[in-house]
Amino acid sequence: VVRPRSVLVVGTGLIGTSVALALRAGGNDVYLSDTHAEHLDHALRMGAGERHQGERADVAVVAVPPRQVATVVDQVLGGGAATTVTDTASIKVRPLREFARLVTDADGDLAASRVARFVGGHPLAGRERSGPRTARAGLFTGLPWVLTPSELTSAEALENAEWLVAACGAHAVVMSAEEHDRGIALTSHVAQLVASALAAELVDQPDAVLKLVGQGFRDMTRIAASDPQLWADIASGNAGPLADVIADISASLGAVAAALRESADSGTAVGALIEAGRAGHRRIPGKHGGAPRTYRIVPVIVSDEPGQMARLLGDAAAAGVNVEDLRVDHAPGLPVGVIELFVGPESAAGLRSALTAAGWAVAEDSADA
Amino acid sequence: VVRPRSVLVVGTGLIGTSVALALRAGGNDVYLSDTHAEHLDHALRMGAGERHQGERADVAVVAVPPRQVATVVDQVLGGGAATTVTDTASIKVRPLREFARLVTDADGDLAASRVARFVGGHPLAGRERSGPRTARAGLFTGLPWVLTPSELTSAEALENAEWLVAACGAHAVVMSAEEHDRGIALTSHVAQLVASALAAELVDQPDAVLKLVGQGFRDMTRIAASDPQLWADIASGNAGPLADVIADISASLGAVAAALRESADSGTAVGALIEAGRAGHRRIPGKHGGAPRTYRIVPVIVSDEPGQMARLLGDAAAAGVNVEDLRVDHAPGLPVGVIELFVGPESAAGLRSALTAAGWAVAEDSADA
Repeated sequence: VVRPRSVLVVGTGLIGTSVALALRAGGNDVYLSDTHAEHLDHALRMGAGERHQGERADVAVVAVPPRQVATVVDQVLGGGAATTVTDTASIKVRPLREFARLVTDADGDLAASRVARFVGGHPLAGRERSGPRTARAGLFTGLPWVLTPSELTSAEALENAEWLVAACGAHAVVMSAEEHDRGIALTSHVAQLVASALAAELVDQPDAVLKLVGQGFRDMTRIAASDPQLWADIASGNAGPLADVIADISASLGAVAAALRESADSGTAVGALIEAGRAGHRRIPGKHGGAPRTYRIVPVIVSDEPGQMARLLGDAAAAGVNVEDLRVDHAPGLPVGVIELFVGPESAAGLRSALTAAGWAVAEDSADA
Repeated sequence: VVRPRSVLVVGTGLIGTSVALALRAGGNDVYLSDTHAEHLDHALRMGAGERHQGERADVAVVAVPPRQVATVVDQVLGGGAATTVTDTASIKVRPLREFARLVTDADGDLAASRVARFVGGHPLAGRERSGPRTARAGLFTGLPWVLTPSELTSAEALENAEWLVAACGAHAVVMSAEEHDRGIALTSHVAQLVASALAAELVDQPDAVLKLVGQGFRDMTRIAASDPQLWADIASGNAGPLADVIADISASLGAVAAALRESADSGTAVGALIEAGRAGHRRIPGKHGGAPRTYRIVPVIVSDEPGQMARLLGDAAAAGVNVEDLRVDHAPGLPVGVIELFVGPESAAGLRSALTAAGWAVAEDSADA
């Protein structure tokens, strides 16, 4: 029972274009605007919406770099282009302050009626690559989207923003801008800086060391390919909370380094850090929020021929089993590999015997995931 | 032209049992030994080999915790159970020193003939979970396996160890124990401690922060669930090199924290760290060594019904396309998701049109991976 609305999307990068595609898929009117002509053209060609030519929209989504958010929000509200405006930047306190400053007059009076129509937002979705080419309608599906209404935000504006989030297939998580920035400093910004610090250590290593890079290191440095300018902007825009968490991590690593040098109690110091990490790790909720769902893994040996994966999944489907996820562990060019099928615990035994009967080499392992 | 041999595997955890399974698959005789009766029984039931009853083997693989390596290697060589002995511990200098000490007599003379028969080894493979239940024959397929012969290691011993590595489907990378430990301190051990330090920050966070945990943070803390005792052992066994790298990372994060507090040049400091991270990241070779292979991603919208993935891959196979990898981006319980098919660049256009013709909703995105 979600009625179609009209939405103006300002900024047609990965996030803006994905929002537009999701909204179009839901039958909404979408207008697109971007000073980056090439991005805008690409988004238009993808069918993400129509070029904005002054139409008034119910909601405007400002999906521009953090430093430009306040100015663009002010322009959109001032020009009367939308009833409610929200943004998508990964920092929330600074843009709100900058916007408040823009709508404060020479006498120090805040234009409260404008601030009432703005709701900060931050969809927790992204990819390693940016730009409209990597956009897709399902980017936000099932993921959290934080909304940070200020004390002046109207009930109508929050409702409009919540409609937008739901229309993109995400679920709204409401908190204050301050809470958001403190939390995201740890869960996103610090992760970026730590990944970069780790990858930076490779710069001066001899070539032999590169042969020792395994999956753990790859996973931990995948985001190190990010855009420096964007991250300098984000980090300086959330400097206080970020400095606190980084200093904390730096100190706890420094303490372990010191303990390792006085070999006496290094085991204790390292053990304590690993224990604390396990305790923190246990607090991470399941992938899509709520209680983590347990899967059972059924590993199957396959050969490197076209159609193997299809035949395997066909046999799984014929057994009435819904494969929830799979992981391919295969070196291209080598004759065999393993495909791990993730299924609900109730399906594992049946799948195992059905695949064995169909001639597949099913490995003994069936650990939980 | 690899002739079958007899191998003794001491320690039937994840690594030992996987070695045994790989060797059995190649038609070799495998004898198993473990003081952990339950592990040994499980490995025997998996068909990983026969219970060791004093048979002499060509090669012995000592797959026990780092702290026990020297003692067990000495026992195996002293008891005449194998011609060549290698181990699988992720640290190489300390076990070698401990072993040399064990075979040095009261007059300070080293039993060089014994040291000649030992080659340190470290397969770069592993999983988040340990124990024989998670073992599988393909664990080492296509991955590097470091061998660290000492100056006293005989040519025959190195050759035997290289045979073992090849028989497990891995490729041997030869370097000194010191080179290995310095390199692995960065690529594996530090990654573990950084993941733990990051996850440990979650312990005292308010519940709302846990809603902000996204994929990047999950990837970076996945290994934080590791075993504290094992890691205390590994870290203290590689204390010097590890302390150097950790102190370096701690210092570079500390400098960024300081810059963020004096907001003037924080953007510069953060930008420089991200740039250095990018430079390091570019040095990481492709997944299986050698030049990274480029794939093209073809994203397809699918519904959450049994058999969708099979039908999709069946259609890909019918078009003659070999899908090299795939990523499922799907929230269980929600009606639609995206499956990203990874194919060679030469196959992307054909796959796209074949799937579209077969009625699939193929998204516009086709970025490289």
